[in-house]
Amino acid sequence: MMDFVNKYKQELLQNVLPFWTKNSNDNEFGGYFTCLDREGRVFETDKFMWLQGRQIWTMATMYNEVEQNAEWKAMAIQGAEFILKNGRDAQGDWYFALDRTGKPLVQPYNIFSDCFATMGLSALYKIENKDEYAQVAVDTFNRILERRDNPKGKYNKQFPNTRSLKGFSLPMILSNLALELEHIIDKQTVDRLIDEVMHEVMEVFYQKDTGLIMESVNLDGSFSDTFEGRLVNPGHIIEAMWFMMDLAIRREDGELMNRCIDIAIRALNYGWDNEFEGILYFKDILDKPLLQLEWDQKLWWVHLEALVCMAKGYAYTGRQDCKEWFEKLDNYAFNRFSDPEFGEWYGYLNRQGNPLLTLKGGKWKGCFHVPRALYKVYSTLEQTENALFVR
Amino acid sequence: MMDFVNKYKQELLQNVLPFWTKNSNDNEFGGYFTCLDREGRVFETDKFMWLQGRQIWTMATMYNEVEQNAEWKAMAIQGAEFILKNGRDAQGDWYFALDRTGKPLVQPYNIFSDCFATMGLSALYKIENKDEYAQVAVDTFNRILERRDNPKGKYNKQFPNTRSLKGFSLPMILSNLALELEHIIDKQTVDRLIDEVMHEVMEVFYQKDTGLIMESVNLDGSFSDTFEGRLVNPGHIIEAMWFMMDLAIRREDGELMNRCIDIAIRALNYGWDNEFEGILYFKDILDKPLLQLEWDQKLWWVHLEALVCMAKGYAYTGRQDCKEWFEKLDNYAFNRFSDPEFGEWYGYLNRQGNPLLTLKGGKWKGCFHVPRALYKVYSTLEQTENALFVR
Repeated sequence: MMDFVNKYKQELLQNVLPFWTKNSNDNEFGGYFTCLDREGRVFETDKFMWLQGRQIWTMATMYNEVEQNAEWKAMAIQGAEFILKNGRDAQGDWYFALDRTGKPLVQPYNIFSDCFATMGLSALYKIENKDEYAQVAVDTFNRILERRDNPKGKYNKQFPNTRSLKGFSLPMILSNLALELEHIIDKQTVDRLIDEVMHEVMEVFYQKDTGLIMESVNLDGSFSDTFEGRLVNPGHIIEAMWFMMDLAIRREDGELMNRCIDIAIRALNYGWDNEFEGILYFKDILDKPLLQLEWDQKLWWVHLEALVCMAKGYAYTGRQDCKEWFEKLDNYAFNRFSDPEFGEWYGYLNRQGNPLLTLKGGKWKGCFHVPRALYKVYSTLEQTENALFVR
Repeated sequence: MMDFVNKYKQELLQNVLPFWTKNSNDNEFGGYFTCLDREGRVFETDKFMWLQGRQIWTMATMYNEVEQNAEWKAMAIQGAEFILKNGRDAQGDWYFALDRTGKPLVQPYNIFSDCFATMGLSALYKIENKDEYAQVAVDTFNRILERRDNPKGKYNKQFPNTRSLKGFSLPMILSNLALELEHIIDKQTVDRLIDEVMHEVMEVFYQKDTGLIMESVNLDGSFSDTFEGRLVNPGHIIEAMWFMMDLAIRREDGELMNRCIDIAIRALNYGWDNEFEGILYFKDILDKPLLQLEWDQKLWWVHLEALVCMAKGYAYTGRQDCKEWFEKLDNYAFNRFSDPEFGEWYGYLNRQGNPLLTLKGGKWKGCFHVPRALYKVYSTLEQTENALFVR
């Protein structure tokens, strides 16, 4: 597995990060262009807050953990200044999208904008000690916790109390956010949040009969036989499992570690497309027809998060099933998603594994999953010899 | 072309309508099941207002125009009673979805629910002279006109005035609705609305340089180089063109008729998939990457509306290009969408033309486009010999 360290490091430093440093700075208005075509040309100038926050996180984290490249730091700072100046409404909630110049386009209906803004600012505070970064990150985090029970606010279209489901996305991201913000929020809050979220993910959303985690459940955690309740997003389960594995490391809990790996491998087997390879985007747990017309597509982030998960599983336990899955995923992902000619990875493949869209960035794909995963994979594998919980 | 009359009539009466009369009545709570799998089994019991209204329209119209089948009339009435009892909030706006028993699930954020409710009730009033049907249809129609400039109300996520685009869907449906409601609203309103809508569709959304109609334009009708502004939905253009052709007939305007046909054929050529056949769901007018991951799929309604459009074009003018397109579309649609084994048509094919989902009805597909189009095609072709505007 040590051969992969150089491969992933090289892909990150030579194929992926240069694509973003070269193409995504808006030197005129600040912030980042994320809508980039195959060759890196800007095809749309709107600025989506998810991706602005995520790119700040990526640039700051690469500077902090990979190498002290001044260009990355400058990019992180310019992105942060842009969102601090333009990104929030009067309540401090983050807009979903701005136009190129920073004028709001789409209201703060989506709390994940806030999650990624706080994640970016708190990572930046690690490398640039400006109080405002920490303060806005903490204030935003507190607003997220306040809004947690009705994250869409007045934009929530559900009629109250007829069918109350809760979604997996928010607890999942909070589990990651708690660790990301550990240096700027108090330990008690972090520990309480981790306890809550670990319970939600591993007990409430986890369904004993299938051994999988659902996207939505009834408030009491029971299965809902509805479109939303039947939905399985294998990539989401697998990504959540590496978040949980980080918590297992933190708690030195080998049983939790192996349980996370078991769930992730179950999700891989369940989501794997035996006909065309790759991991399907969505499935219905009762094999009923789905609402998602994109269900059979192969998405970049799903495969990257699976690589991270299996690299961690192997590094932390030495399990051979993790190694085998890692190699299988690596083979598919590098053959299908990576674009050595123009840099970065394709985001969206059709079921057959060919690009459905040739973009490298868009409304939902930015400078985040590819570099984060490449970095997590190689830095995790470097630690393989110090496996913590060998079975 | 007369051979097609029997083919379409038989498909309607033997393959399609029986599927719905057999499987979609909810005899316990009223209303219709629309989520039906390939064999017609109910896989989800929620009731989506678009599809409830549309099925009332279909059953009432078939009774009124095809044959006086008492089962169809009873179905129309039971659906109408269900939506009248359960479908509206305190302001008279129509919910988007109800649960099986009629409790509201999703708020009235989407004005098309109202459009289809009024369309269904007004068609029913033609065959069942109950004042409430006409009254609620008219009241709803007036609310639609009131809400027209901000149809999503408080659920509108756009920040005001940064980028104001207007959408093609509402004027398009109003052009159809004006004719559908002609028997219950005053002539002056109908005529004024038709003038307005015809101007919007044929001048404002129509773009001279490409000869196509866009999904969204700036308020002044100019092109917007944004994701929304670049979007072309060929099926939508083609469907709108037969609505406009009906208005051309009404006004005895041969020039308008031929202009509509020219635009529809341009949209067919533009949307046709030369590699795998069929009409693509979405394209970007500047060939930039799309947001719609389903862009390359082949949808039932697109092909059915195109059949109606070309049948009308041929019947009204005798144009050979309409005949050739009709035959090409007929061949693709009957081979790919129709399911002689279990009835009805598939809704969603992948690019290669194979079912992506095997459902016959769902959240967006009900008893509407297939029967309406089959009926419109054969009834139009029956009139071929009386062509109005032979070129």
